[in-house]
Amino acid sequence: MDISNNSKASSLEARIRSKIDQKTKPLGALGQLEEVALQIAMIQQTETPKISSPHIIVFAADHGIAATGLVNPYPQAVTAQMVLNFLRGGAAINVFCRLNQITLTVVDAGVNYHFDASEQGPDFIDAKIAMGTRSYLEHPAMSAAEFQTAIRKGGDIVQSVHVQGSNCVGFGEMGIGNSSAASLIMSAVTGIALKDCVGRGTGADDSQLALKIKTLEEVYRLHRPAMGAVPTAEKIMQHFGGFELAMMTGAYLRAASLGMIIVVDGFISTAALLIANLIEPGVREHCLFAHCSGEKGHEQMLSHLDAKPLLRLNMRLGEGSAAALAIPLLRSSVCFLNEMSSFEQAGVSNKD
Amino acid sequence: MDISNNSKASSLEARIRSKIDQKTKPLGALGQLEEVALQIAMIQQTETPKISSPHIIVFAADHGIAATGLVNPYPQAVTAQMVLNFLRGGAAINVFCRLNQITLTVVDAGVNYHFDASEQGPDFIDAKIAMGTRSYLEHPAMSAAEFQTAIRKGGDIVQSVHVQGSNCVGFGEMGIGNSSAASLIMSAVTGIALKDCVGRGTGADDSQLALKIKTLEEVYRLHRPAMGAVPTAEKIMQHFGGFELAMMTGAYLRAASLGMIIVVDGFISTAALLIANLIEPGVREHCLFAHCSGEKGHEQMLSHLDAKPLLRLNMRLGEGSAAALAIPLLRSSVCFLNEMSSFEQAGVSNKD
Repeated sequence: MDISNNSKASSLEARIRSKIDQKTKPLGALGQLEEVALQIAMIQQTETPKISSPHIIVFAADHGIAATGLVNPYPQAVTAQMVLNFLRGGAAINVFCRLNQITLTVVDAGVNYHFDASEQGPDFIDAKIAMGTRSYLEHPAMSAAEFQTAIRKGGDIVQSVHVQGSNCVGFGEMGIGNSSAASLIMSAVTGIALKDCVGRGTGADDSQLALKIKTLEEVYRLHRPAMGAVPTAEKIMQHFGGFELAMMTGAYLRAASLGMIIVVDGFISTAALLIANLIEPGVREHCLFAHCSGEKGHEQMLSHLDAKPLLRLNMRLGEGSAAALAIPLLRSSVCFLNEMSSFEQAGVSNKD
Repeated sequence: MDISNNSKASSLEARIRSKIDQKTKPLGALGQLEEVALQIAMIQQTETPKISSPHIIVFAADHGIAATGLVNPYPQAVTAQMVLNFLRGGAAINVFCRLNQITLTVVDAGVNYHFDASEQGPDFIDAKIAMGTRSYLEHPAMSAAEFQTAIRKGGDIVQSVHVQGSNCVGFGEMGIGNSSAASLIMSAVTGIALKDCVGRGTGADDSQLALKIKTLEEVYRLHRPAMGAVPTAEKIMQHFGGFELAMMTGAYLRAASLGMIIVVDGFISTAALLIANLIEPGVREHCLFAHCSGEKGHEQMLSHLDAKPLLRLNMRLGEGSAAALAIPLLRSSVCFLNEMSSFEQAGVSNKD
């Protein structure tokens, strides 16, 4: 919301609240849906908001660390295999998008695989930065130039979706090893001890988890001094990030600047939001939080953002899957605001 | 599920679990949706379940107690006014059903109002038992014959929906004063102290809530002795119930016996399920729980049924509103089971 516009905004807010309270229901009886309706109406600066052509954009990329097997139970090749699965329509995100009338776009932000024209299909965008990041066991994951390119490309992709008529976007990700990147980012941004930021990702067992924590603690110690006393968003992403996370950061920034509704998915997508929100704190106001996932650390990440998730289904899949499941709840929120009768319209007696 | 069929059921269960685990996702990564998919598949005894023509049936009735104003901040007339609102399409349940392609049926189980033919419309069913229950300040709310009639009519309504091709049904309710009936039922069935079963309903303030608790404690003391040491479902409903709750009980029983998926709404609908489940404990296996509401007591009611709700949106509206919001999650569960590719189909490497 435009800060210079506060008095107009607050009188609009009062009108929206009054409209919600006049609906034929006890005061506050639609609970969190009322908060969602208010937030969407304020994002769009109208008493009659709408959700048009919602999109999920899945950013995929590989991580140098993943080739070592130190942090991930699945092999790195699964990133490309899953992208092909997205392009053929067989993954969870495909199913949920089809069911809920959401358009899906799959972005190669830096997968260690060359997708043939015959494999790409109409939902594919080639925005490859490189064939994966460098391993942060030895180097920063990406250069400053790569980071800036990823930010720009992420923004441009959102812009193209917006031009197609969408005002609501959710971001998903695919990248073997990216729960490690998200944990490192979370610790650097929030100051929470790294061990409390590291979870099982795609399903590490106890010994794999112990190795993951030990490895990432070494990585954190190696890189943290080079970032300075208060690390910038750029430094954190360059050292620990992935291309899918950097590109998603650019996507968050552009979506907010375009006044779009942003649906935040799981642990990894929320890590990218931490970075975007560090660059531009106004991004947070555009975000609705789909889910608190089963991945350790997500609950604290959401607390850090003062975010109340819509769903708690103990999922830990990524791909934008929770965002796709939450969009019907956003639609329900907007529809009750637009379509329910008021006490006066319905001739229903109000309390007292 | 047929108890005589256990070995067949358990081998089917193993096949369904294996099918879920072979989908292209980390083991268990779809969390609660995996449990929902399994339960629906077991209800339908198939690896390829489906949800056909979901219906919400809203049962409406008046309560003798409501005329006193001792337990309810809204006047009794609001029951009929809200039924008219349902029939004109202006209530929350109308909005959510339209949005989610759910058929809505509105049943007059005992509203203190005569609905003209011109007011009824195609979604209306006249199953009126009487112009409301008697006040349990003095009498049992209904006779044994009225209870039996309500059970039969509720069953017949579900049967007619099933004949139309529906295999999935949620029940809502409207009845000023019915959170009091639900609290009394909850206490009688679970043994939890009445004061812990009574909440604010449609929005009682502190003094109204204190009066509600005091009134209902007197009612409980008045009726409880006549019910015997271990009160039966029939006795509890006759003394404390409403016609909408009794009819919903019959609806639960019939839906389960027809092998339907049942979507349980909020506090009041769950109270009717407590009664149905006391009559026939197998009903519980057919139930998916939409929501843990903001109404005090609902969390403990759900615990009593060992139920895990899909949503926690702090709603407290009734009408079947939460059931309507949860049906897209049921559809998502069934669709991932039917439509997602397996690791083998997609050529994706599994863990290890």
